[in-house]
Amino acid sequence: MLLYDYYRSSACYRVRIALNLKSVAHRSEVVSLIDGAQKEPAYRGKNPQGLVPALDTGEGPLLTQSLAIIDWLDARFPEPRLLPADPAARALALAQAMVIGMDIHPIDNLRVLQYLKHQLHVGDDERDDWYRHWIIEGLAALEAMAGEGPYLGGDAPNIADTFLVPQMYNARRFATPLGDFPKLVAIDATAQQHPAFVAAHPDRVKPAE
Amino acid sequence: MLLYDYYRSSACYRVRIALNLKSVAHRSEVVSLIDGAQKEPAYRGKNPQGLVPALDTGEGPLLTQSLAIIDWLDARFPEPRLLPADPAARALALAQAMVIGMDIHPIDNLRVLQYLKHQLHVGDDERDDWYRHWIIEGLAALEAMAGEGPYLGGDAPNIADTFLVPQMYNARRFATPLGDFPKLVAIDATAQQHPAFVAAHPDRVKPAE
Repeated sequence: MLLYDYYRSSACYRVRIALNLKSVAHRSEVVSLIDGAQKEPAYRGKNPQGLVPALDTGEGPLLTQSLAIIDWLDARFPEPRLLPADPAARALALAQAMVIGMDIHPIDNLRVLQYLKHQLHVGDDERDDWYRHWIIEGLAALEAMAGEGPYLGGDAPNIADTFLVPQMYNARRFATPLGDFPKLVAIDATAQQHPAFVAAHPDRVKPAE
Repeated sequence: MLLYDYYRSSACYRVRIALNLKSVAHRSEVVSLIDGAQKEPAYRGKNPQGLVPALDTGEGPLLTQSLAIIDWLDARFPEPRLLPADPAARALALAQAMVIGMDIHPIDNLRVLQYLKHQLHVGDDERDDWYRHWIIEGLAALEAMAGEGPYLGGDAPNIADTFLVPQMYNARRFATPLGDFPKLVAIDATAQQHPAFVAAHPDRVKPAE
């Protein structure tokens, strides 16, 4: 499989974790968001939305959107399960993932930060406050929804953990205080020891300069 | 079932459509976002995230997050299907839903608009430009992903249509030009004739003043 990837994209990072958890052989093609490569015709021709990630499975249409890709992977490669079979556990896992995927990440996305800077002339300090505000509000909700660990998924990581770990990476990049979220900090620390998460880390997949 | 609902919330509107499509008997309790009722302890005690929608199914824990609620409803009440069985069709439907659910709606959410106004002192015109910018960017992607209709789901509505129709309502509220999106405009017009969509419309569920 071929993943259109950018090392620092949270949505790509989620998909890299999922691919690794399921031991799916894949290679990556870099789409450099910071250079605007996602807006170039070469990429738009493949993915009209001009966002990453996208996954060429070799089995059908190009897949886009991290949630849809992970859901597809979970059906195609059932073990280990990322979406629980039990309806209540499944609803909780999806809700936890969406607290990050809908309520934090889109508002802090690079293209939004660029709009704040270039169209609204928001300064760096105010931009950083914005960034941390949405993380803190969302993580407070997620902390209240977390169980006893060691993962959001319980004994093993599930889809919610694939969303959490990239968000915690972003939180730290912007020096977001995490003291109010002890459960999430502990879950993230556990995941940082898991080979599938380690291999997906931005520092591990960052292209050479 | 009891839906914690606000008439103008897109995420609530999606869930109302899904409940109606599946003919699930339910009543609503109003959580007035404009009055800040979602932040009051009475509601936070039920849903720590303090967002709507939330669904008390009477069968287990309170469900939150529109995607997770619709996914749960689709498993519990299988007909009509909102998530296709075919893996490629399912991935497309989820991706279409997420173009709206992740890439448009969160950035234009009421709490974000309030932050722009109160924290960043963004004026009404600039706020409206912001609102329309994310809609236009997202709908352009979705137009390219749409099939021949009459619904995003093909012959019948699916989860993507439950996300599209509320977003088109929002687009019109802010006078967003829709001329570049003829497929989406046609799909929305079709859905506006469907009883499940009609009954879920904000004008139909708006509480008396």
